[in-house]
Amino acid sequence: MERQDRQDLGAGALSTSSRPIETDALIIGAGPVGLFQAFQLGLLEISCHIVDALPRAGGQCVELYGDKPIYDIPGTPVTTGRGLVESLLQQIAPFKPQFHLGEQVATLARQDDGRLLLGTNKGSAFLARTVFIAAGVGAFVPKRIAVEGIERLADTRLVYHPDALDSFAGQTVVVNGGDDAALETALALIPIAKQVTLLHRRDVFQAGDATVAALRERIAAGTMRLAVGQPVGFDDAQLHIATPDAQTVALPFDALIGCLGISPRLGAIADWGLDLVRKQVPVDTEKYETRERGVFAVGDINTYPGKKKLIVCGFHEATLAAWGATTIVFPDKSIPLQYTTTSTRLHTLLGVDH
Amino acid sequence: MERQDRQDLGAGALSTSSRPIETDALIIGAGPVGLFQAFQLGLLEISCHIVDALPRAGGQCVELYGDKPIYDIPGTPVTTGRGLVESLLQQIAPFKPQFHLGEQVATLARQDDGRLLLGTNKGSAFLARTVFIAAGVGAFVPKRIAVEGIERLADTRLVYHPDALDSFAGQTVVVNGGDDAALETALALIPIAKQVTLLHRRDVFQAGDATVAALRERIAAGTMRLAVGQPVGFDDAQLHIATPDAQTVALPFDALIGCLGISPRLGAIADWGLDLVRKQVPVDTEKYETRERGVFAVGDINTYPGKKKLIVCGFHEATLAAWGATTIVFPDKSIPLQYTTTSTRLHTLLGVDH
Repeated sequence: MERQDRQDLGAGALSTSSRPIETDALIIGAGPVGLFQAFQLGLLEISCHIVDALPRAGGQCVELYGDKPIYDIPGTPVTTGRGLVESLLQQIAPFKPQFHLGEQVATLARQDDGRLLLGTNKGSAFLARTVFIAAGVGAFVPKRIAVEGIERLADTRLVYHPDALDSFAGQTVVVNGGDDAALETALALIPIAKQVTLLHRRDVFQAGDATVAALRERIAAGTMRLAVGQPVGFDDAQLHIATPDAQTVALPFDALIGCLGISPRLGAIADWGLDLVRKQVPVDTEKYETRERGVFAVGDINTYPGKKKLIVCGFHEATLAAWGATTIVFPDKSIPLQYTTTSTRLHTLLGVDH
Repeated sequence: MERQDRQDLGAGALSTSSRPIETDALIIGAGPVGLFQAFQLGLLEISCHIVDALPRAGGQCVELYGDKPIYDIPGTPVTTGRGLVESLLQQIAPFKPQFHLGEQVATLARQDDGRLLLGTNKGSAFLARTVFIAAGVGAFVPKRIAVEGIERLADTRLVYHPDALDSFAGQTVVVNGGDDAALETALALIPIAKQVTLLHRRDVFQAGDATVAALRERIAAGTMRLAVGQPVGFDDAQLHIATPDAQTVALPFDALIGCLGISPRLGAIADWGLDLVRKQVPVDTEKYETRERGVFAVGDINTYPGKKKLIVCGFHEATLAAWGATTIVFPDKSIPLQYTTTSTRLHTLLGVDH
């Protein structure tokens, strides 16, 4: 499986010209297993960078159950998704892993020297000795508005989950969605935009009571509009909306904001020649390595006999994968197992030496 | 490997006549991995009993590094051996596992109905559908005094690490050892025994400053004696002690107390036909099952390609082993994976349903 010739692992050429960041390890995914991967690599003195599509660390754990209780992390009788991620960030802090958030890894290609060249959709590039795919069920990206050709409006007139709203000043804006993020975006636009319309498929919202009450009040006062229906088409000045009573109405717009939630997409990983089985990456159970030498897969994205999609299993997988990387990063060294309780070397690395 | 005929797995017949306790699962070892095993079994509604040679839960974790820091439990930036065990006991409390402490499992034999009959050195017996060996480096038992034939004195005149000292009232007692437990036992005997001698191989002690100071004071005051040397023989009334200057002196005694610390012994597990490899039990990585159906091995005692003796790995092994047991305990049921975050069934089991 070791291939010293330059070989594209199924993805296209890099679209970036930036000088790649050289690193021992690149971790794809900053969920709990990706974060603990950085910890185990750190104990073995393997430096790493971490890329995640989301703007913050935590993955599913924060996005889907940030405030919900988790009872099955060993030694932690109860925590929340956010609590677990905060603890892990504190735990890995001594190793100062470098995060590249809001970026998706798009390409992976083997170099002549055996290293792996990876490029992201934001133009970052990494030249890594080892890669750890900890991508869970895929990158969490905004759900798209399902109108044919609508992506032509993107970046200027079509924006998903915008960070800032200043660019909509004086515009006629349609916000599509019915959750807290959609309602809060629409409400925040009232003093900025010329006109705000909230577009949702029905007159019921998945949002907090106070937010819904604020929305109802603004609609009653005439400072924003509600349109009930689904977008089905568009022209330069108008969205075409199918209403629940099977009419099509026109909705004028300068800008369209999508707030339909986020959903995971496996994305480019599916194209890397890793012989996926039902969207899972097969690995061995000795190193949790894929069929590509130096490319490991840990957590919910991998599969092997007995696999259970549990965080506790991902922690183990990350541990053995880090050990698997040692033979590549330190080919001439035999690394002894040391314990954080007794090893002065590990205490120094952890910044707890006395 | 399934054997319905009654078959002795290498150990002798049970010496007990007590009616065996019937259980879905018996866990051997109450260290962190054995405790988490009870948690994962509990989530799957598999009842269990736990046996450990020590008088308390915690195993190595408490015995060897109770107050020392541990930095590599995922999501717990720092804890201690004792802290980890306390958290795990809290975590498994909803499942009310039944502990049998201070007992060592001695025998394991397959019954006609496929169940496993286990007996302990204290006469307890269990009839279990599944067995989880989480015995670490073995049972922690007191280090023995290395004098030929001395075990003849046992139970009446030779006691290791006694819980109570009342039985030594009015006796001439020799305490052999030099650590905190030895010194504290000797000091505590002064108001009880007729005469107390601390016997240690040298005039230096592995004990706290205050305890050593108290010892020196009592020796100076003549209320107890210090003998420096090693026991090499005995007769009915006297221990024979080899001193550092190569003399042999006699030390009168009614009772001898051994406080030489504890050390692990694999014990009877080595005789159960599990094909040990360097004192480790080979397992698969799908269920962490041994060559005997229904007998699983988790934590430091097992071995497989890639094995690292780390607690985080034992937690994963215990998780998959619990799933491995479901096909034996619930042969006709397909058990879906549920998450503690969202499953109302698991919330009920955990006692957190609202």
